[in-house]
Amino acid sequence: MDIRKFSLPEIIFGRGSMHYTGSYALQLGAKKVFVVSDPGLERSGWVSKLIEIIEDSALRWVYYANVSANPRDYEVHQGADLYRKEHADVVIALGGGSPMDMAKGVATVVSNGGIIQDYEGANLITSPLPPMIFLPSTAGSGSDISQFAIITDVGRRVKMSLISRSLTPNVSIIDPDMLSTADDDLIVSSAVDALAHAVESYVSTIAHTLTETQAMKAILLILENINPALKTRDPLAMENLSIAATAAGMSFSNASLGACHAIAHSLGGFFDTTHGMVHPVLLPEVMSYNLPACETKMANIGEIVLGRKLSSTAQTAQGGIERLREIFVELGTATRFREIVNDETAFPQICEMATRDACLLTNPRPATATELLSICQKVW
Amino acid sequence: MDIRKFSLPEIIFGRGSMHYTGSYALQLGAKKVFVVSDPGLERSGWVSKLIEIIEDSALRWVYYANVSANPRDYEVHQGADLYRKEHADVVIALGGGSPMDMAKGVATVVSNGGIIQDYEGANLITSPLPPMIFLPSTAGSGSDISQFAIITDVGRRVKMSLISRSLTPNVSIIDPDMLSTADDDLIVSSAVDALAHAVESYVSTIAHTLTETQAMKAILLILENINPALKTRDPLAMENLSIAATAAGMSFSNASLGACHAIAHSLGGFFDTTHGMVHPVLLPEVMSYNLPACETKMANIGEIVLGRKLSSTAQTAQGGIERLREIFVELGTATRFREIVNDETAFPQICEMATRDACLLTNPRPATATELLSICQKVW
Repeated sequence: MDIRKFSLPEIIFGRGSMHYTGSYALQLGAKKVFVVSDPGLERSGWVSKLIEIIEDSALRWVYYANVSANPRDYEVHQGADLYRKEHADVVIALGGGSPMDMAKGVATVVSNGGIIQDYEGANLITSPLPPMIFLPSTAGSGSDISQFAIITDVGRRVKMSLISRSLTPNVSIIDPDMLSTADDDLIVSSAVDALAHAVESYVSTIAHTLTETQAMKAILLILENINPALKTRDPLAMENLSIAATAAGMSFSNASLGACHAIAHSLGGFFDTTHGMVHPVLLPEVMSYNLPACETKMANIGEIVLGRKLSSTAQTAQGGIERLREIFVELGTATRFREIVNDETAFPQICEMATRDACLLTNPRPATATELLSICQKVW
Repeated sequence: MDIRKFSLPEIIFGRGSMHYTGSYALQLGAKKVFVVSDPGLERSGWVSKLIEIIEDSALRWVYYANVSANPRDYEVHQGADLYRKEHADVVIALGGGSPMDMAKGVATVVSNGGIIQDYEGANLITSPLPPMIFLPSTAGSGSDISQFAIITDVGRRVKMSLISRSLTPNVSIIDPDMLSTADDDLIVSSAVDALAHAVESYVSTIAHTLTETQAMKAILLILENINPALKTRDPLAMENLSIAATAAGMSFSNASLGACHAIAHSLGGFFDTTHGMVHPVLLPEVMSYNLPACETKMANIGEIVLGRKLSSTAQTAQGGIERLREIFVELGTATRFREIVNDETAFPQICEMATRDACLLTNPRPATATELLSICQKVW
């Protein structure tokens, strides 16, 4: 195998671990922290709880509230202005992928200057970022683990992928208690996002044993725990979904992703769709497209999804993809693009833009814009 | 589950990755690096290759050569004197556990002052260490991944366990090519060491899913690859042993170890034995002792060792332990203490000292000195 990297933030995992936020911020030299979250978490009381913990450590703070479901370039620049004006020194994000990616954007711009567009692509961040502490409130995005940030360029209507070792936070504090206020939709869309991370990174052309082990564990944990989590909010099932999202994050952060994410980014920039909506539609079809390039690996996934091997590698692989489609139906997600977006004519442009997304580089089967379009048309 | 941490160095893995040492040292701000290795690696040419790579990056260097197979307190203090005298700024270790643990000791003393004995135990290192880059030359110790350092206190005849987040190096550069010059004995003793890390950390009282996944993968990879590695030096098998040692390191660094390592440290301080000699004797007996406290987990290990489940959990667990004993015999290791040490009367004192080793805290079944002695007597 070629030379591979594997890196992670320091992870603190467990119910109640949120209480360590203040002491970690102090360890990282904080005097005034910049906090990013979102209105939903303000309403459910988690933001005021976090602020209380921060104040208990005698830290000052400034709060940036207005993050969209897909964070936008101008929000990053507003946040950076606020960070500078308030002389903040450590970035704390509480939330799903959006507040965390927004926080990464702010940390990048305040330390490296310019605008967030300057850093679109891989390894373009050169100066060290201020310390970052992330508290994921969903079991899905993996942004608290990963080297990725996804920010929407509003002018170009594209979700930019920023990939850099510097975008991994210093500390990820994963407190599964925060999932207790999530509704069914959020639990499903987050789990589906984590599942897509695991599947795409598992078959990535730069996957290796350390990432593959995590990806397979994530797939198993999600499939075993999603129904108990939805039905009874069983704390162990919720905790296992958190572990799954973390493991999937460890995998995709180091092995990258594939065509499903490349299209999801492009589509999300155009229609403001979230990953949780797009993946159930797209993932099985992308897996079918990739199947000839990685049959054994798809069969390994199939064996987990089906709970057994079928009579041949090809059948196990195919059977796993079919069963995954059924699982998405059972979870009540959309299974056709027509259910979530209203304009089929945009797809040629969306697929053209997807070919420029860094995630497509590691898809196991090369894909042109025409091939991506054909995938999308099959699930229109 | 309680709150758990999971942290790792940045890992660079792959054949030829040694060449990145210079650029990582530069990234970490090096001007003059302090290099630790051992006579075996000097003879096999790896030290001069490393020095060449360092010089190619226009870095100055100073070399400390005289590391024992079990690094000693006075060597750490000599190394620290040399580091200070030469105004080094980054520590690079090339070797097995001994040069790496020696390097950790030097980094601790030069940044935190005093003597190495001041830091025996858990979390006693308070000031940041100089940056450390480690290149493991064996697939075993896991010191390049772990928060542990083992240093012999010559006066007290005890191997001290130092455990601290600060003891994880910044970067671990794992180049499986370095295994090509290892002889059979080194490959076996390293693999056995990694296997013991995996087994003990898997059943540790503070294990959690992220560590358990790595531990199970490590056990599987070692058992699948040790024979091909020995027979033909198959590069893929050698690479898999490296991955296994890394995975086992990820597990034990975060979940700690158990009674087998507690006794091995105490015994090693007294008789200067290495882990690779002690574990094949001790591990199966410690597993038998622990069995009643963690039957399901022992059965999971048994299923991997045997390649199948037997008719009950208890039988699978027991069968796995028996098979492991046979595997050690097939690998030609000692299976009785009488083969490696010459004085049975020292064991009461050794077991008394083992009860004060930090590794015993996480053993799944509590053990008094008398119970440890009974384990040792069974394998005299």
